[in-house]
Amino acid sequence: MPIWGGRFEGGPSEEMLQFSESLGDDLQLYEEDIAGSMAHARMLSEIGLITPGQLTELRYGLIAIRDELLKGTWTPSLEHEDIHMAVETRLREKAGEKVAGKLHTARSRNDQVATDVRLWLKKALGELDEQLGRLLTALLDRVEADGRTLIPGFTHLQRGQPIWLGHHLLAYAWMLSRDRQRLADALSRVDQCPLGACAMAGSPHPIDRHRTAELLKFGGVMDNAMDAVAARDHLQEAAALCAIVMTHLSRMAEELVLWSTREFDLVRMDEAHATGSSIMPNKRNPDAAELVRGKAGRVHGDLQALLVMAKGLPLAYNRDLQEDKRALFDAMNTTTACVSITSGMWEMLTVNRERYDEELRGDFLLATELADYLVTRKVPFREAHEVSGALVRWCEDQGAGFEALDLNVLKNHHAAFEANALEWLDPVGAVERRTSHGGTAWCEVERQVALLRETV
Amino acid sequence: MPIWGGRFEGGPSEEMLQFSESLGDDLQLYEEDIAGSMAHARMLSEIGLITPGQLTELRYGLIAIRDELLKGTWTPSLEHEDIHMAVETRLREKAGEKVAGKLHTARSRNDQVATDVRLWLKKALGELDEQLGRLLTALLDRVEADGRTLIPGFTHLQRGQPIWLGHHLLAYAWMLSRDRQRLADALSRVDQCPLGACAMAGSPHPIDRHRTAELLKFGGVMDNAMDAVAARDHLQEAAALCAIVMTHLSRMAEELVLWSTREFDLVRMDEAHATGSSIMPNKRNPDAAELVRGKAGRVHGDLQALLVMAKGLPLAYNRDLQEDKRALFDAMNTTTACVSITSGMWEMLTVNRERYDEELRGDFLLATELADYLVTRKVPFREAHEVSGALVRWCEDQGAGFEALDLNVLKNHHAAFEANALEWLDPVGAVERRTSHGGTAWCEVERQVALLRETV
Amino acid sequence: MPIWGGRFEGGPSEEMLQFSESLGDDLQLYEEDIAGSMAHARMLSEIGLITPGQLTELRYGLIAIRDELLKGTWTPSLEHEDIHMAVETRLREKAGEKVAGKLHTARSRNDQVATDVRLWLKKALGELDEQLGRLLTALLDRVEADGRTLIPGFTHLQRGQPIWLGHHLLAYAWMLSRDRQRLADALSRVDQCPLGACAMAGSPHPIDRHRTAELLKFGGVMDNAMDAVAARDHLQEAAALCAIVMTHLSRMAEELVLWSTREFDLVRMDEAHATGSSIMPNKRNPDAAELVRGKAGRVHGDLQALLVMAKGLPLAYNRDLQEDKRALFDAMNTTTACVSITSGMWEMLTVNRERYDEELRGDFLLATELADYLVTRKVPFREAHEVSGALVRWCEDQGAGFEALDLNVLKNHHAAFEANALEWLDPVGAVERRTSHGGTAWCEVERQVALLRETV
Amino acid sequence: MPIWGGRFEGGPSEEMLQFSESLGDDLQLYEEDIAGSMAHARMLSEIGLITPGQLTELRYGLIAIRDELLKGTWTPSLEHEDIHMAVETRLREKAGEKVAGKLHTARSRNDQVATDVRLWLKKALGELDEQLGRLLTALLDRVEADGRTLIPGFTHLQRGQPIWLGHHLLAYAWMLSRDRQRLADALSRVDQCPLGACAMAGSPHPIDRHRTAELLKFGGVMDNAMDAVAARDHLQEAAALCAIVMTHLSRMAEELVLWSTREFDLVRMDEAHATGSSIMPNKRNPDAAELVRGKAGRVHGDLQALLVMAKGLPLAYNRDLQEDKRALFDAMNTTTACVSITSGMWEMLTVNRERYDEELRGDFLLATELADYLVTRKVPFREAHEVSGALVRWCEDQGAGFEALDLNVLKNHHAAFEANALEWLDPVGAVERRTSHGGTAWCEVERQVALLRETV
Repeated sequence: MPIWGGRFEGGPSEEMLQFSESLGDDLQLYEEDIAGSMAHARMLSEIGLITPGQLTELRYGLIAIRDELLKGTWTPSLEHEDIHMAVETRLREKAGEKVAGKLHTARSRNDQVATDVRLWLKKALGELDEQLGRLLTALLDRVEADGRTLIPGFTHLQRGQPIWLGHHLLAYAWMLSRDRQRLADALSRVDQCPLGACAMAGSPHPIDRHRTAELLKFGGVMDNAMDAVAARDHLQEAAALCAIVMTHLSRMAEELVLWSTREFDLVRMDEAHATGSSIMPNKRNPDAAELVRGKAGRVHGDLQALLVMAKGLPLAYNRDLQEDKRALFDAMNTTTACVSITSGMWEMLTVNRERYDEELRGDFLLATELADYLVTRKVPFREAHEVSGALVRWCEDQGAGFEALDLNVLKNHHAAFEANALEWLDPVGAVERRTSHGGTAWCEVERQVALLRETV
Repeated sequence: MPIWGGRFEGGPSEEMLQFSESLGDDLQLYEEDIAGSMAHARMLSEIGLITPGQLTELRYGLIAIRDELLKGTWTPSLEHEDIHMAVETRLREKAGEKVAGKLHTARSRNDQVATDVRLWLKKALGELDEQLGRLLTALLDRVEADGRTLIPGFTHLQRGQPIWLGHHLLAYAWMLSRDRQRLADALSRVDQCPLGACAMAGSPHPIDRHRTAELLKFGGVMDNAMDAVAARDHLQEAAALCAIVMTHLSRMAEELVLWSTREFDLVRMDEAHATGSSIMPNKRNPDAAELVRGKAGRVHGDLQALLVMAKGLPLAYNRDLQEDKRALFDAMNTTTACVSITSGMWEMLTVNRERYDEELRGDFLLATELADYLVTRKVPFREAHEVSGALVRWCEDQGAGFEALDLNVLKNHHAAFEANALEWLDPVGAVERRTSHGGTAWCEVERQVALLRETV
Repeated sequence: MPIWGGRFEGGPSEEMLQFSESLGDDLQLYEEDIAGSMAHARMLSEIGLITPGQLTELRYGLIAIRDELLKGTWTPSLEHEDIHMAVETRLREKAGEKVAGKLHTARSRNDQVATDVRLWLKKALGELDEQLGRLLTALLDRVEADGRTLIPGFTHLQRGQPIWLGHHLLAYAWMLSRDRQRLADALSRVDQCPLGACAMAGSPHPIDRHRTAELLKFGGVMDNAMDAVAARDHLQEAAALCAIVMTHLSRMAEELVLWSTREFDLVRMDEAHATGSSIMPNKRNPDAAELVRGKAGRVHGDLQALLVMAKGLPLAYNRDLQEDKRALFDAMNTTTACVSITSGMWEMLTVNRERYDEELRGDFLLATELADYLVTRKVPFREAHEVSGALVRWCEDQGAGFEALDLNVLKNHHAAFEANALEWLDPVGAVERRTSHGGTAWCEVERQVALLRETV
Repeated sequence: MPIWGGRFEGGPSEEMLQFSESLGDDLQLYEEDIAGSMAHARMLSEIGLITPGQLTELRYGLIAIRDELLKGTWTPSLEHEDIHMAVETRLREKAGEKVAGKLHTARSRNDQVATDVRLWLKKALGELDEQLGRLLTALLDRVEADGRTLIPGFTHLQRGQPIWLGHHLLAYAWMLSRDRQRLADALSRVDQCPLGACAMAGSPHPIDRHRTAELLKFGGVMDNAMDAVAARDHLQEAAALCAIVMTHLSRMAEELVLWSTREFDLVRMDEAHATGSSIMPNKRNPDAAELVRGKAGRVHGDLQALLVMAKGLPLAYNRDLQEDKRALFDAMNTTTACVSITSGMWEMLTVNRERYDEELRGDFLLATELADYLVTRKVPFREAHEVSGALVRWCEDQGAGFEALDLNVLKNHHAAFEANALEWLDPVGAVERRTSHGGTAWCEVERQVALLRETV
């Protein structure tokens, strides 16, 4: 019989109990729920609404319940509806009806749940941040280890210009670095304590909300009781953050899948993150990367669920909001797991460092170099481009690449060419010349690694 | 050690095993998995690839495993990765390595999983259809019981014209009726057997795919092996169907919440679907309706997850697709549960039949009637409208409603008014006059009920 | 001054006029709007509510307005709010206040708009179907032209088994074929006429809704006036259909992008659908494919917009629903354009038919063949697999592929090997042996082409 | 003929030109595009890559083009593909091939577009922030004007506890206040200049990226050239911000619609934001609120489009990304327009201040007060609740509300009641007693107004 149902003759149907329970989702909130109750009890005793003896009984009871839940010696059941009711019921068994009842002075389930979820989210954001830091480190380590691998920079998945692999990986490092900034920003809005808002209107009792916030290590107190129980923007912001992280991871995962193909053949996943074939022992399916990519859709879906759930919802609490936990928990847990496995992949994979060394010699992706050379000789950009295009066509007509060029050919196409022009066709030289701020030259890669190292 | 991993020295890491397992999701597929294996084994024996004795051993083993899973006497563990591997491993323990191994002749996990999911989805669509039929019946019963309750038809949530509640409820009945059509259409595309497609290329053995399809009661056989393992449009279609059903339910739920307010006061939810307050025993929170409304977002999210997962995915199988089950199962299970609880609400709630009887007398929402009266007296529509508007203003100037009108006043505003004009201001008469096809008049309500009854 | 605003002193603000107008979106509905009015007028004259002379005037006026809109000699402006009001206002100028006013007898903007959108959607679905048919034909033509190109069948983007390109392309053909089925199913639900539902309650006048439906070539009449104006499931179903089509196209687009890389090098896009580089004339960026892939997200977004818009919306009309047109129009127009450009790509691209001929000889992706050979020699499947794996390892130890195998080596690994075993290592033979229903063998490809040809 | 197409014989098809153009979307970027070119030219001249004379010619040309676009005396056409090409082509006509060509030294379309979008987004975020500030002010003004209106605080849309309207409105003010924080956070990540990243690899020329950033008033420079052109997280973050704002607005809009009903009757929308009925002059349809609510789905859809577009996309630029502008522009423009119209509604509507004054006297929503009274008399919370529930039932048995209570009845239910207990049943007293931090008491409302005033 639910706690509020004293007067209902029939009470909720069996189906309703099953339909409306959220234990499966919010069981993982039990530590936060008990921590919130401990802080509330202590504050109540400090303002004299309960006695020191009652505080002691409540604390003993709550600690015992936490212990039972941790060890699995007591498990809430369906009639408890949610973890808060479960703990409350159990506390009545432990500390007696009268003392247990005191705990609910100047508190409602609305602010209690809101507090629990914020405490959980603070913890979960911390874990995600830690994993993001680990992934950032893995990427920086990889840049230092294999960053000087020559690869084509792709646009439209076509070869564009030669770059260092390190330059490419650092693009992801910066994205992740912004994800961590976003996380810190979101955290500042999560870190506000709603406890004491009661149902929506606050309390007539002299409760000290700053004290409970302090005990629970919140950075601040929510200033409006209705906002405290009805707002869900902090969950939506956290899920949006996860959706963006997952989009970044899905891009990286796509490249890991591509680069693991026989055709690209740039990386080899470690066995730890691949599946094989009983019959083709050399096969390495990049399953971990594929799963990460696939889970992006799941987290996008969680975000939409959280937005749609709250669309057009009047204040203050409506039962629709119970659905928030499933989506939030899934978004946070999935994202953190994906960041972690992605770190693992980067920590353990092997780069095929010579993959493109030969293939890029004489490749027309160096055509830009000839144009840039001419620009340094004061030839206008458009003219330089045309000359460069003409040289590509000349080589094509020979059925060759740029290796067919010599100084004569160059001079026949434009008088500004000098002997050193041919040096510009070395892929590594092409990479190393791009020393502009953020360019692919190794000095710039090193500068960025140093900058990013400071953040982890 | 996974079955494909014989050659891997390290094998997947602990984290990878946890990250990539799908047992939690696909444990509910075990009946379908075993049914699929039974049919495959029987076909293999019929074409002579296994002996009758081997068939018997396989059948005994599979039946025993199904029994164990049903009773919980054996539970797959994490290393099994998924339900298919779990059953396969267990079967080797039961029937011996050699016989169990035979089962995998001319079959891969790809077509096996695809078959299982289609079998499951056929069952789940059947259950959803049954619940939709129940809800349709509940609405039709309600129309017959309380349909002649006078209510305002709302536009913009403002009172527009008087209607029967039955007319309003039938709008939902038609929506649900289309949902059932959509379901039947979707089912026809799910009902195609992929078994025998193998990894993606079919088999060199003389398997009989029509026979396994027949044994599994499929309506047809998928015609292309690659399509059979790579397509997910049938899941997306099922989830889209669910999303549309949920949108319908959310609209109904919104109205149940509104109508349960003290302000609207048109229905009273049964205790079976409401929560109360320990202190306000008369309070009835329409929790079931709110949860249904909130879960709409969840199913919209599931649909997006299924679409995004497959976006830009090359053929044939990619591990991303493993994510399909979680979203599909959740969309189907949530929707079916929501349809069921909504049926319960309609079956058990109470309608406040007199709510609007007094309030609509003389209400200006009858202004359209006066205009329509004049149209029947050959007054052009626009002129009729203007007269009607002038009469509203005249009443407003008296600080009264239409009850202030008499024949004199009417005639002063337009000569075409006769004594019977005043009768048009009776709300019930206004409703009953709207006998055009699909209009709110009771005869039209009855016609629709009869039509819809035939479908359930 | 809006038509409904006679009594408002201030009327809507400038900002509100701009905020609430939908002309930009629904201007493309003008033909449907005028067709609906023509049918309505004719029916009104047939039941005697307007005279033959009035009908003639209305028809002349409406035809003139259609002509003006077509030629651009008259353009609606912002105060008209929407296309329906614009036409109505213009008609009053042409046919006079009195006659024009008659047109609105037994009709409201609600059923008028609902009718227009359904007429538009029927047309748009027809166009999409035509383009899907064209794409299907392009794929079938391509299968016949280049289908016998040997490629690896990929799983996890790793090489799995050799297949014909035709087998791969037919997987898409079947997906598109189901999309057309879905389209036909959706169309049957769109093809119901709402005209005559009026605001939501029907009409007291003896209108003939079946007649207007017939004049407008609708397949049926909506049976409930409230449903007729409030339902949006037909739009959501159409958008879901588009989202699924776009998911299919995005998969194909991804492969076209992949196959256009230097690494895969399997197709070469025609210049008609690519962009180049002024400096690298040989470069072909597969822009059309990338845009198609990118637009998948846009259509997913449109679907989400249509679902969320209607979530929790009470009956009957609410202004929220005005937002439906933008999302619907964009989903339909974008999808049709993407199908068309995809047809163009397949019609014009070039297949590099010899790409994999050499590369697949001796490739371990043939390992399955050896196992399947042994199965035909009655060796149990698992044992056969082990032998096959051992042979791969033996080759690897030689630093070679399967070309290193001879009969001796085979026999050393298993006594069941005969001389013809080596023939099984021919990639083309491997493909052609898979003659099971839906397998990759050319006879199966031809069977499917014939089946699909019948549908276009 | 596109600029890159010199070597293509056919060039893109007509259909492709139409399919791939983005002028319709990015025409609104022209100011940013020209500003970016001006800054780039100035920097080029400062580092000596162009002469002062060339700089002057470029500046004159660019200013003239901006002028033409502003006045509409020149309009880009379809062949220009996008605004950047259009301006470039026009500049060649104005400043000559040679000088115009110089502008593209050390710049590609990739970094140019990225810069334009960031400049636009900075401006758009500024406008949104301004409108959010206006809405915040409108709410605070409304709180000061009508905040002391007694209303029921709702949970589950059931009456829960009496509160001030001001307390309710401030909940929204805090939500909007956090939206502004989020906006500032997002802005800091948008405010990084990508110009000079070139195609993806930086430049071999001695460009000064900090100088262009400074000229364009960016707060910083993006540190990696690949990240600079490939990242879209800043757009996704902006769209997520918009989606959250829209969710807040949709909740407010829902309440405005509800409160405008005859049943709730708490507010009356100004004519400026409503539509009426030609026949029911007193009708006020809250169209502006409904449109805002409906547009929430649209912005959720835009966010989804931006996330899906980038899902699984390899680095660096892919043409898919062209789709970003449509969704971003729509999300920003729609949200800003919705915030603005919502401000207008709050600025101009009328509150029915006496609506609930009578209705809440004696209402059981005061039951909590009696329990709280007993708690102040040291009665344990649960016991107090039971007594309060019993008193409700006693009143119900009399068929009355709390007005039926006198001191005798109270004392019969619990000895701790004193004469002043009856005073606790005054609704205004109940509100004013809730002085806990964030409670509904007027002093707390005033405290919050002061705090929030400081932010606007």
